[in-house]
Amino acid sequence: MRALVTGGAGFIGSHLVDRLVARGDDVTVADNLSSGVLDFIQGHIDSGAVTFHNIDLKDLDSVIPVMEGVDMVYHLAANPDIRLGTRITDTDLKEGTIVTYNVLEAMRLSGVGKIAFASSSVVYGEDAPMPTPENHGPCLPISLYGASKQAGEGLIGSWVGTFGLQAWIFRFANIIGERGTHGVIFDFIHKLRADPNRLEVLGNGLQEKSYMEVGDCVDAILLVVSKTDAPINLYNLGSSDTCSVRNIAAIVIRETGCTGASIDYTGGDRGWAGDIPKAMLAINRLQDLGFRVNYDSEEAVAHTTRVLIEEIMG
Amino acid sequence: MRALVTGGAGFIGSHLVDRLVARGDDVTVADNLSSGVLDFIQGHIDSGAVTFHNIDLKDLDSVIPVMEGVDMVYHLAANPDIRLGTRITDTDLKEGTIVTYNVLEAMRLSGVGKIAFASSSVVYGEDAPMPTPENHGPCLPISLYGASKQAGEGLIGSWVGTFGLQAWIFRFANIIGERGTHGVIFDFIHKLRADPNRLEVLGNGLQEKSYMEVGDCVDAILLVVSKTDAPINLYNLGSSDTCSVRNIAAIVIRETGCTGASIDYTGGDRGWAGDIPKAMLAINRLQDLGFRVNYDSEEAVAHTTRVLIEEIMG
Repeated sequence: MRALVTGGAGFIGSHLVDRLVARGDDVTVADNLSSGVLDFIQGHIDSGAVTFHNIDLKDLDSVIPVMEGVDMVYHLAANPDIRLGTRITDTDLKEGTIVTYNVLEAMRLSGVGKIAFASSSVVYGEDAPMPTPENHGPCLPISLYGASKQAGEGLIGSWVGTFGLQAWIFRFANIIGERGTHGVIFDFIHKLRADPNRLEVLGNGLQEKSYMEVGDCVDAILLVVSKTDAPINLYNLGSSDTCSVRNIAAIVIRETGCTGASIDYTGGDRGWAGDIPKAMLAINRLQDLGFRVNYDSEEAVAHTTRVLIEEIMG
Repeated sequence: MRALVTGGAGFIGSHLVDRLVARGDDVTVADNLSSGVLDFIQGHIDSGAVTFHNIDLKDLDSVIPVMEGVDMVYHLAANPDIRLGTRITDTDLKEGTIVTYNVLEAMRLSGVGKIAFASSSVVYGEDAPMPTPENHGPCLPISLYGASKQAGEGLIGSWVGTFGLQAWIFRFANIIGERGTHGVIFDFIHKLRADPNRLEVLGNGLQEKSYMEVGDCVDAILLVVSKTDAPINLYNLGSSDTCSVRNIAAIVIRETGCTGASIDYTGGDRGWAGDIPKAMLAINRLQDLGFRVNYDSEEAVAHTTRVLIEEIMG
């Protein structure tokens, strides 16, 4: 089994590569290292378990050669910074939608038949019921990142319906953990490192979302792929509870030892335009396959805080 | 009120331009005439009611200037040939998704605040309940055209959520009528013109869809825009019944007088890979606004057949 992991040097991608290598797959990684970190997979490259290609997936001609001999693509490459779309509007179009088109077209031209795709809970947009089931509609994302994930889902659907591809689509909750390179915990640690006496929190802190530990996330991906076999298989991936931003702030302050820090809220119900204040996914379809998380949301936050302090503070 | 109609020289676009001019709007049309026909709006150009720009919407720099002074955009430009995606995979990405991005970005840069968008019932994909309500999910289109319409919806959602745009999204049934330049009736008339003794029908003829007459369609668009005012307003547009392809074949044979024609079915449950065999939209939300169609599906087919015979056979 040869797997291609796009974005395989990134946060979630590198954990998936760990699992695929551990179970004996031949693994090819395609990553432009714009947010990925080669060190995350250097051990696998050195051992010969992973073939690494530093390519720009925005260039179709570069994508086609890496499909050689591939049985299944895990397409995780994307711009990871949701907030960026508020300032630069074409990043998600190019790094998300167009890259996904290129991956699908290269698969078609090369005869690669299976894809797993990292979509996101943000495709549900605002005002979805909580917990949100996979069949919620209409999906009207409010961030440009969400729009690119929805576009990716649609492209995959069309390749399944038109060209006979088989696909797994995963709508991720907030995935956190070791090697995280962005997100609220990462930001809080950096802020407290710069000023241990003050923590600025975007919004009123009442934002409340599900968090899933990255190891749980990649375990879930592999379990669903192994247990389902429809032409297209769509699953929410998350934990079955939430953690508020206020609670995250308290955990990070506790774990960093910055117990004298004052918390300044910037106010408003969300962190930025396009942020979704409250999100929790229905994961009963995932649980019906026998999956259980190792960490609930608060445990995932506490665990992630500890490993990121180690990574950031050294 | 200055309206910009993209694709305003096209089939549906030119009917919308007729209505907007009739009610006294200043109208700008942007169309590259790839499937649009200048003659459809030449009268309005000659009278000074319409300003016409032959531009390529794929080029953002060309789109920005036409936004000058515009209050509302009716974004209808797209590749109209759903089947094309089975042979050429980047047309819908470029003419659909990227063009919609360019329109939205040009609106943002120019401060234009309102958009109406021609989406499609094909975003619902296969196996949706019939009639299909707007809140059906998950939406996994099976044609590349459908993927581009879904991508357009998501982009609009993100511009509403991130940049404060106001939007109306219309999921069209099969729109047919005067000036039609593609579709099953158009194809049947051309086939019988080439050979009055034989009509080839793609699939088994049991495909069954809702048809809406184009005048009804543009009336519905203007009614919904006038009666709704949420940040984002999503409506199915269609009639409340269906017409089978076998029935369409019989109507076209009757109206062309080719009553000796034999019908050859190519077989299979659909016309081509990515075609949806059965589709009917729930239109109760449209009806709740007081809208009634002038033509049901079969009447729309018969009327369209008569006007297209006139247009094609002269």
